[in-house]
Amino acid sequence: MGGPTQAHSYADKARLPVKTSSNPPAVILVEPQLGENIGTTARAMMNCGLSDLRLVDPKEDWLSEKAVGASSGAAEILQKARRFATTEAAIEDLETVYATTARRREMTKAVMTARAAAGDMRARSLAGQRIGLLFGRERIGLTNHELGLANVLVEIPMNPEHSSLNLAQAVLVVGYEWFQAGYDGPDAIMAFNKTTPVTKELLQELFDHLEQELDLCGFLRHDEKRPSMIVNIRNMLQRAELTVQEVRTLHGIIKELRYGRRDDRPKRQPGYKVDKD
Amino acid sequence: MGGPTQAHSYADKARLPVKTSSNPPAVILVEPQLGENIGTTARAMMNCGLSDLRLVDPKEDWLSEKAVGASSGAAEILQKARRFATTEAAIEDLETVYATTARRREMTKAVMTARAAAGDMRARSLAGQRIGLLFGRERIGLTNHELGLANVLVEIPMNPEHSSLNLAQAVLVVGYEWFQAGYDGPDAIMAFNKTTPVTKELLQELFDHLEQELDLCGFLRHDEKRPSMIVNIRNMLQRAELTVQEVRTLHGIIKELRYGRRDDRPKRQPGYKVDKD
Repeated sequence: MGGPTQAHSYADKARLPVKTSSNPPAVILVEPQLGENIGTTARAMMNCGLSDLRLVDPKEDWLSEKAVGASSGAAEILQKARRFATTEAAIEDLETVYATTARRREMTKAVMTARAAAGDMRARSLAGQRIGLLFGRERIGLTNHELGLANVLVEIPMNPEHSSLNLAQAVLVVGYEWFQAGYDGPDAIMAFNKTTPVTKELLQELFDHLEQELDLCGFLRHDEKRPSMIVNIRNMLQRAELTVQEVRTLHGIIKELRYGRRDDRPKRQPGYKVDKD
Repeated sequence: MGGPTQAHSYADKARLPVKTSSNPPAVILVEPQLGENIGTTARAMMNCGLSDLRLVDPKEDWLSEKAVGASSGAAEILQKARRFATTEAAIEDLETVYATTARRREMTKAVMTARAAAGDMRARSLAGQRIGLLFGRERIGLTNHELGLANVLVEIPMNPEHSSLNLAQAVLVVGYEWFQAGYDGPDAIMAFNKTTPVTKELLQELFDHLEQELDLCGFLRHDEKRPSMIVNIRNMLQRAELTVQEVRTLHGIIKELRYGRRDDRPKRQPGYKVDKD
């Protein structure tokens, strides 16, 4: 039967395999207009493992009830946020700055997708650089003067007919990409959790049992079709990625079905529906 | 000089290179509680090129003023949204369904990151399959019964200490990944826009001009250091990815600087600051 082969699953949050970074990027909001947007930005930062929030001349209080409420548990980031009078002052300790822009600029400058920028950020962060993400005002974004302070323009590929993201969504997408670039787990996995995937030996026993009964009941009576029918049935069962318990269940189903309908067993009542949990 | 080599930039939204899909995924919200969340979901869908919104027993009107306002221009998606009494009815025309879950489930089932799921979705969509994305209630998500209706569980890797996304953010991240999986443009580019990158011939002329003046003014007077100093200066200028116009500007700067300070030219006033646009 084999021992329990509890497959690793990234669903197990406690063990989420993420490369740690001692210097994740700072998030710099230039003249944010609404406290609520600062709050939702803090929440998005928290989701993505970011904590250094810098505010350049914010137009509303980032510790207002509205802002803290919008942060949904990321009040700590708001409390530690720092206010700066100018963008220059907010970035002076940083070495590489990425500016997120929504519209095209006539500038001779490196442009990266959020994903490519995230790879670049991880590489620089691992090399010990201090980096920052610059986001502009809700309506008008960043000025050309401010873009001149950044190394790279970051663009988020989106539906060209409706590409505008709100401030916190833009922070979420860039932060999400930062987080993914450090994610080191499996991309796709069959999560067996506490169940045990079946060995080919046990699966072969199921094939044998099923095909024997299908021979006896006449389902495989056409000799010329029999081989391909068997391969198809086997492929169907292979795709199901069965567990040891499920193979036992299928043996039971085959055994019971071959008796046909019988009256000496209790039945479910008519009108039976699948229970919902 | 060469002709204009206008580099392609994905900043040019009108030409955004995206693989078209005749059957993008439907978004199915199971018992959404708040009209506002349905609105922000519609906005996120519009951002990601999705349009087929299906609502299973929604608890508020999705065409309320609040919902339409929150959709920020995606009212069309709300107007075309369809209501279903059950999840089974909402997905009956689909072939593959991806269910987004926030917390770990004890289920034997395929689990994918949002990114891996997006690749899978694109492959199935291109093969003509009709696919759907299932999202649960704001607070309690999807029931096990509902997960049993889906092919794949989708998990979004996020900060394990603060991984909860609101409904529209979850739709945005999964939709964003869908869009990226169809994005066919460059990941990183030096955007020259209307400027022309310099040829190595013109760059060599700049090197020659600068090094000649540096020899004459004595900056390169140490013979043993001269070769490495020259390589360093050249690397610095290579990194700048200069344009033809910028090389002309640098020739002018070198020429003017070598005269030293002079009184026969108008000067900027003291206290001069960089203009902000």
